Amino acid sequence: MAYSYEYPHPAVTVDVAVFTVDNGALEVLLIKRGEWPHTGKWALPGGFVEIDESLKRAAWRELREETGVHAGYLEQLGAFGHPDRDPRERVITVVYIALVPLDRLRFEAGSDAADAQLFAISELPELAFDHAKILRRARERLRDKLDVADIATQLMPAQFTLTELQRTHETISGTESDKRNFRKKLKTLEIVEPTGENRQGGPHRPARLYRATRSI
Amino acid sequence: MAYSYEYPHPAVTVDVAVFTVDNGALEVLLIKRGEWPHTGKWALPGGFVEIDESLKRAAWRELREETGVHAGYLEQLGAFGHPDRDPRERVITVVYIALVPLDRLRFEAGSDAADAQLFAISELPELAFDHAKILRRARERLRDKLDVADIATQLMPAQFTLTELQRTHETISGTESDKRNFRKKLKTLEIVEPTGENRQGGPHRPARLYRATRSI
Repeated sequence: MAYSYEYPHPAVTVDVAVFTVDNGALEVLLIKRGEWPHTGKWALPGGFVEIDESLKRAAWRELREETGVHAGYLEQLGAFGHPDRDPRERVITVVYIALVPLDRLRFEAGSDAADAQLFAISELPELAFDHAKILRRARERLRDKLDVADIATQLMPAQFTLTELQRTHETISGTESDKRNFRKKLKTLEIVEPTGENRQGGPHRPARLYRATRSI
Repeated sequence: MAYSYEYPHPAVTVDVAVFTVDNGALEVLLIKRGEWPHTGKWALPGGFVEIDESLKRAAWRELREETGVHAGYLEQLGAFGHPDRDPRERVITVVYIALVPLDRLRFEAGSDAADAQLFAISELPELAFDHAKILRRARERLRDKLDVADIATQLMPAQFTLTELQRTHETISGTESDKRNFRKKLKTLEIVEPTGENRQGGPHRPARLYRATRSI
């Protein structure tokens, strides 16, 4: 069946950048493309928007189909629409960001993805389409929103120490924080609360465990 | 001529929210629609993306055609794509924000716009499509970015007093600032510098005039 229009229409896709923090490194979930174009290259999971589904719903569906990941909160990064970004036809893509703590991130390649894997942002492989540019923008958005929206807490496991939270914050922002100022800010923002438990073991004295009080 | 595709394609438009501050009120530039659908309703200026132009270029072109405004910096707010937002067909729109000081904002209705007018954000008319929702999001983006990007200075005329700048800041943020804290923050951010001149006249003592040192 063919669909016909009086003037040329672009195709619209969604792509999802799933970020996590693993041992102090910011990582992103990529899939290996199983189909033309850019076959065999790594890319953000994504695909075409169905004509009757919302953009966010499409992002959620494509992420699940290609990686098995059920995203919680998806934030829209924006639309990328350079006329030459896809060799097939004019394709405008709408990109979403998801933040998933490592201990809740389960994935496996599905649909037309040949593989799925986490990559450190500092050691990305060659990427398909304009996905390298998209990831740079996503990184900037994370940095910009860090203080406003306490993204770091979203990437933590259920319980964490303040030192672990500070390390995650530093990983995303790319800058070191002063320990005292960092803890003062946490107090002001009221974004964490003690769980009442301590992290035992190791050579150091036990550290208090905290949990997030809210998310963006 | 007809354009044919193997699967249904959405149409893609761009819309532009041009903000300015007039006598302490945040205002947005709207056009009165001259064509179906929503004929006679007020709407953000915008229109269909040409198949070979970038999204930002389309936004710039549509704004110029419909209102005569040549936008400087356009920031993308994001894509809005609810399947039922347009009665014609599936239309996904990519929205841009422009900030223009009132003394540089010249506009007149053009193209398929029947009229063009500034409206206070607090007194918007009934809007076409989902443009009321889009404007709420745009307003949130301005608030979120205010501290990071000193948007307020972009909305000021070439020279302004610190009191005028504070009033604009308060207009966008919707909250009052403490005068002393506000000035302290300006100093930290280094976003304004004295011009060496003073505002004369009026019953008060002359106020020093400032200019912006940088923009986002």
